[in-house]
Amino acid sequence: MKHYTSIHDIDHINSWIEDAKALKKEPLKHITLGKNKTLGLLFFNSSLRTRLSTQKAALNLGMNPIVMNVSGDAWGLEFNDGTVMNGNTAEHIKEAAAVVSQYCDIIAVRAFPTLTDKVKDESEQVMSAFKKYASVPIVNMESATGHPLQGLTDALTISEYAKVKKPKVVLSWAPHIKALPHAVGNSFVQAMQKMDVEFVIANPEGYDLNPEITGSTPIYHNQEEAFKDADFVYAKNWSSYENYGKVVNSDPNWMITKAKIGDAKFMHCLPVRRNVVVEDAVLDSDNSLVIEQANNRTYAAQLVLKKILEDS
Amino acid sequence: MKHYTSIHDIDHINSWIEDAKALKKEPLKHITLGKNKTLGLLFFNSSLRTRLSTQKAALNLGMNPIVMNVSGDAWGLEFNDGTVMNGNTAEHIKEAAAVVSQYCDIIAVRAFPTLTDKVKDESEQVMSAFKKYASVPIVNMESATGHPLQGLTDALTISEYAKVKKPKVVLSWAPHIKALPHAVGNSFVQAMQKMDVEFVIANPEGYDLNPEITGSTPIYHNQEEAFKDADFVYAKNWSSYENYGKVVNSDPNWMITKAKIGDAKFMHCLPVRRNVVVEDAVLDSDNSLVIEQANNRTYAAQLVLKKILEDS
Amino acid sequence: MKHYTSIHDIDHINSWIEDAKALKKEPLKHITLGKNKTLGLLFFNSSLRTRLSTQKAALNLGMNPIVMNVSGDAWGLEFNDGTVMNGNTAEHIKEAAAVVSQYCDIIAVRAFPTLTDKVKDESEQVMSAFKKYASVPIVNMESATGHPLQGLTDALTISEYAKVKKPKVVLSWAPHIKALPHAVGNSFVQAMQKMDVEFVIANPEGYDLNPEITGSTPIYHNQEEAFKDADFVYAKNWSSYENYGKVVNSDPNWMITKAKIGDAKFMHCLPVRRNVVVEDAVLDSDNSLVIEQANNRTYAAQLVLKKILEDS
Repeated sequence: MKHYTSIHDIDHINSWIEDAKALKKEPLKHITLGKNKTLGLLFFNSSLRTRLSTQKAALNLGMNPIVMNVSGDAWGLEFNDGTVMNGNTAEHIKEAAAVVSQYCDIIAVRAFPTLTDKVKDESEQVMSAFKKYASVPIVNMESATGHPLQGLTDALTISEYAKVKKPKVVLSWAPHIKALPHAVGNSFVQAMQKMDVEFVIANPEGYDLNPEITGSTPIYHNQEEAFKDADFVYAKNWSSYENYGKVVNSDPNWMITKAKIGDAKFMHCLPVRRNVVVEDAVLDSDNSLVIEQANNRTYAAQLVLKKILEDS
Repeated sequence: MKHYTSIHDIDHINSWIEDAKALKKEPLKHITLGKNKTLGLLFFNSSLRTRLSTQKAALNLGMNPIVMNVSGDAWGLEFNDGTVMNGNTAEHIKEAAAVVSQYCDIIAVRAFPTLTDKVKDESEQVMSAFKKYASVPIVNMESATGHPLQGLTDALTISEYAKVKKPKVVLSWAPHIKALPHAVGNSFVQAMQKMDVEFVIANPEGYDLNPEITGSTPIYHNQEEAFKDADFVYAKNWSSYENYGKVVNSDPNWMITKAKIGDAKFMHCLPVRRNVVVEDAVLDSDNSLVIEQANNRTYAAQLVLKKILEDS
Repeated sequence: MKHYTSIHDIDHINSWIEDAKALKKEPLKHITLGKNKTLGLLFFNSSLRTRLSTQKAALNLGMNPIVMNVSGDAWGLEFNDGTVMNGNTAEHIKEAAAVVSQYCDIIAVRAFPTLTDKVKDESEQVMSAFKKYASVPIVNMESATGHPLQGLTDALTISEYAKVKKPKVVLSWAPHIKALPHAVGNSFVQAMQKMDVEFVIANPEGYDLNPEITGSTPIYHNQEEAFKDADFVYAKNWSSYENYGKVVNSDPNWMITKAKIGDAKFMHCLPVRRNVVVEDAVLDSDNSLVIEQANNRTYAAQLVLKKILEDS
């Protein structure tokens, strides 16, 4: 594997899950693999779990992590070709990506969408530019349209907690006060489509995700119907895809409650707004897997880094 | 020892001081103790000495430090229970503390007081929440009401420079242009109360520290009287405790001068505003211990981390 | 060597270049030299290449880098003596430099000029204060008047790509939208004056660099004339030195183009504004050395750190 920028970069999800479980059992087994290798973590946006778990994953492999908040520590980068750069951007990604490649053996990048320019977001301008101009492998720490480290984490977590051979997994939209990206939802959909689960999506009308991603996955506009016999309920807010980036509905009736999900396991990528997205009673119950998901972020990242190191 | 969040977590201060002196002599003696262990340093507020000395302490024990400026690198955290999180906070401390615990073997936290809400500050909301919701040991890098790494440092420094068996130590309020926390003063008081010193406090009327902390320690409102025969003068500004968080007096006559302290050793936790808190002639004299205090921050932090690592 | 704050700290540039080439061939050869030593990187200003390459250089020597953005992570520092510090600065450099010296074996500092106060800038207030008050070696990561890690990098790069014994090197001013420092220009001039090259400077009238630095180096106000038979064209914008810090001319005709430089190698320290300073056709051609220059930043920094470690 060269880059890891999408769930599609996973060839056999079940073998990846088994590999991740093995890393979780012995996190330091490959402590010499990354010796004297550097992981550059470039953040164009805020991060807590990704920031810490990816550093931890690198350390578990013996790598040296170097963290940079691109805007705060350096300056604005230009992504358009042929521009006369007499504005706010001081360096072109052509130079920046090529340069950083010389100091880092792997570059991990976080860059959120605009949520105003669908074409630009779907072109994955930042991630694509790093893949094009960097000379080292690129890892997606959440981009405009995907969060594949989270998707791999979620697949691992479901595999660990599944009590039946083919569990029913529901991805449910939930209310939020802000317009949020589709990245986590998209990668979760793609991960579930690769797994042996019964997978459905529940969201209000106007909130269907990109149909090229959801494909033949059933979409319910009735949450109760979707939740029937669910083993896992994964909650996440996203803004409208059709009416791109807009909050077309913030119906509090879609908040996840204990009454709604019954004995199903609850999942969320975090951060989560309590009593807006999901009520306290769910998060504070034994059925909540959110902390274990966060724990698994380390092993998902570690597996990705390990595979890249082994192939390079 | 599980957590280190207060001077009260020190069981026998004299043996701690001897341990710290031993670390200072051979800082790398325990370089394998923290191997492959991670120290997370979470800053809700600015820091220079604490930031650097705590990292250095971790490195001396072979640990991997990971630093995060919580607000700048991530987002606002919620500390109240049961809140409908539809405001400025994006993640509850319940999740944040539990999550960070999975990436770090020890979590060190800096979180200053509001200085407007006494009840909230005295509840030590942030530190208490971390102790409650984290699953790993917590180290206080200065909280609303205490700075126990500084207090331990100061005890060590006084022990090193004492020329008599029972020196006289004076903690003196000094002028400042801003309303400052009581944390350093409180922890110094608590540390001195544990040591075999003659300890008194000098401050203008209206600036008495929390009587539950000062207890039976003599408080002088006349600086000259307090300084009589002093071996150590420790200067620090704090805002009013009674008239909580207010600057009720900034009398420049309380500035520390060479004429006032004579041959006494001068101490301050730094940063210090020259010629406001203390005149140049004191800081630039051989009697100033401020640089050596800063040096001792490393060994105080290293001792705390070492004790936690040994017990976990 | 104690400090490295100026090109003048290089005793024999040719032997330094050979040493740097040797490090580039075997970057990890001295991986034990810096074991358990700490490099503090203090940034008063933004940085990308310097931030990453200097960390990488430290890691290649086995050192532990600790990074701090001074203003963002801590607070404003005072540099004037005798000040009554009742304003925006909370700590004097006397304390700060002495304190940081106790946590770091080497301190690297970046501090840009004001471009409004020539006397202050030429006094190199920040770098001088660190040299005066720190007790450990200081490395200049770009100061008010010099960028000697860049200058050493550029000397190395020219040595690598020179096809003739005494190549012709031109430093050319180029247009920019902002008032920029003279540091890179100054250090490049000083480095070239030490090398066996034919060196000339090209800039519009009003943009002559400090005559005490340029000395007898020929200065052309006609770019075409200067570029004649050039083997290397090094582009850089700077503001006026005479009319200090002012943009007295931003003539787009001084932009570097393929037509102008022909087969000459193109150099720039980066970041570079495309199609303002230099056209795409130059940067995207095989004659551009800018990425290789950035690569060489690691080895220049590594050589400096190595020399300091060996001498201390």
